[in-house]
Amino acid sequence: MHGGDIYRNDIKYDFSVNINPLGCPEKLKEAMIKAVERVEEYPDIRYERLKNAIAGKYSTDVENVLVGNGASELFMAVLEAVRPGKVLLTAPSFSGYEYAANAVGAEVKRYFLKDKLNFRLDEDFSESITDDVDCVILAIPNNPTGDIADTGLIEKIADTGKLLILDECFISLTEKSENSFIFRLRNYNNVIVVRSFTKSFAIPGVRLGYAVCGDEVLARRIGGCLPEWNLSVLAEEAGLEALADEGFLKDSRKIIAAEREFLSFELSELGFRVIPSEADYILFYEKSNTGLKDKLIEKKILIRDCSDYYGLENGWYRIAVKKHEDNIELIKRLKEIRYGT
Amino acid sequence: MHGGDIYRNDIKYDFSVNINPLGCPEKLKEAMIKAVERVEEYPDIRYERLKNAIAGKYSTDVENVLVGNGASELFMAVLEAVRPGKVLLTAPSFSGYEYAANAVGAEVKRYFLKDKLNFRLDEDFSESITDDVDCVILAIPNNPTGDIADTGLIEKIADTGKLLILDECFISLTEKSENSFIFRLRNYNNVIVVRSFTKSFAIPGVRLGYAVCGDEVLARRIGGCLPEWNLSVLAEEAGLEALADEGFLKDSRKIIAAEREFLSFELSELGFRVIPSEADYILFYEKSNTGLKDKLIEKKILIRDCSDYYGLENGWYRIAVKKHEDNIELIKRLKEIRYGT
Repeated sequence: MHGGDIYRNDIKYDFSVNINPLGCPEKLKEAMIKAVERVEEYPDIRYERLKNAIAGKYSTDVENVLVGNGASELFMAVLEAVRPGKVLLTAPSFSGYEYAANAVGAEVKRYFLKDKLNFRLDEDFSESITDDVDCVILAIPNNPTGDIADTGLIEKIADTGKLLILDECFISLTEKSENSFIFRLRNYNNVIVVRSFTKSFAIPGVRLGYAVCGDEVLARRIGGCLPEWNLSVLAEEAGLEALADEGFLKDSRKIIAAEREFLSFELSELGFRVIPSEADYILFYEKSNTGLKDKLIEKKILIRDCSDYYGLENGWYRIAVKKHEDNIELIKRLKEIRYGT
Repeated sequence: MHGGDIYRNDIKYDFSVNINPLGCPEKLKEAMIKAVERVEEYPDIRYERLKNAIAGKYSTDVENVLVGNGASELFMAVLEAVRPGKVLLTAPSFSGYEYAANAVGAEVKRYFLKDKLNFRLDEDFSESITDDVDCVILAIPNNPTGDIADTGLIEKIADTGKLLILDECFISLTEKSENSFIFRLRNYNNVIVVRSFTKSFAIPGVRLGYAVCGDEVLARRIGGCLPEWNLSVLAEEAGLEALADEGFLKDSRKIIAAEREFLSFELSELGFRVIPSEADYILFYEKSNTGLKDKLIEKKILIRDCSDYYGLENGWYRIAVKKHEDNIELIKRLKEIRYGT
């Protein structure tokens, strides 16, 4: 169901998880090591410092901010608070939305993104938001495709008044991070933006996400569906450090853009169909379907086989954009496989 | 609603939270510091190592084990999976059960423990388990009273067949830890034991709990209500270290028992009504109700005012059993307050 299973594979290069290739900044690690001295204290049950920092950064009120033990906890809490009958998802997209929908017994309606449009979200989607749909979840950028839907289209979807959950977990690593809907929530009390530090600061092992909710009353209801003390003191410190560090994200975006271009070009040269991406990962297709994942595992490289995504079949793979030397290694190994050398 | 609010008080001695007075073992801190090097990895989504260690320790199958971001997350997930119409709680008891019941919209029925029995659970309780009750939650030992219900009585409650959630978060610090229901779950598929490392290993800042569920099918359903990757890599490492360290708990139990006796005696000498406790905390009553909590805050000591517990009124306080020098300090300050010196 997910990438990153380094626990049951012998892997040297993990291209299956889409975290920032620059890795976790030393400052964050230092903050966490320092926080170990505080494990004997309960975290602040209100997480005031962290919530204030988030509210300050996005010019919102602290009452609209939620913090979570990873974005995964926040998706679940939102759906628990709202208990929608039917949730509209796109396919392919992140499986975690369906996991959360299942947990609350919501029915899932799937809109299949069009292969001929490279799975880009188009106007046509709005027609799927029928009366029986209570909630729409969209990833911006989408995962595994990497496309960022047009702001106009997102606004149109938000204008339907349906609860709209926007998963922006990867947006800070794209060149469109300033376009985020997080800056527009004052006008939309039916929209929630969920984010995490997992990908942008490469700390999937820590569990740290947040959400900004257009509606303060809804935010309070969602908060009531989150366990008390849901963040560790280590996560809170890491979050504070991360929020203060804009330079790191700026550098990351530059490197990711360059490496994404390099990888996309090389994959195309190798004959794969490459879906244009704006994110730190790339979806591609091997028509001949030669069992690429297993062949790469033999070379200690893990990629994400996407055949278990709704809307994708055998032959679709996702790779993370990693550091140049890692990307070169991947391309080298793919060439070996392709040309049998 | 909870003790431990050191974030909005200037406190030197926190008697309001009931964690192990020996503090977090250095070994656990070292394991966490080491784990900071692994924050760039996703945790094992199955938490195989930790679950296996828990299953091994309590001779249960790994399928019956759940791990959570603190016990608070587990209470919520159990209630979400079961969605009971009515939950039976005792009063006074930990407010977290009601918080979880509210989150899933369950009605709360309260059984008031009897003051004349020092709030000890008695046979009479069984009569409250009426047909409309779907779930019973009991703390063993109870919090804030510190009493451990008789095993025979718990069995009788379990025999009703109603879902029974036993919160054993403090049991490892009592002298009855071997009596735990966790060893009897094979015979009860309607019972779930929830525990945490928070109190026993003094790591409230980390968030780490687990549950053993008598029924494997129910365990799977509860698992589906937990977010994916709900434990950090740091928490998992701390848990593995904690499970391996029985000597620490043995030492802790000895010290706690001695200090509890000391504090209970001194509090009685000071004229307070002291509820007999088997736990690492003591509930006591000041009849004259002189605003003890605020007077102690002036002396940088925080205790838990229990007047917000259902079933308790003004004048009830709970203190943690801490290290001897801290306990001496508390008694000294209480004497100052009492005798105006």
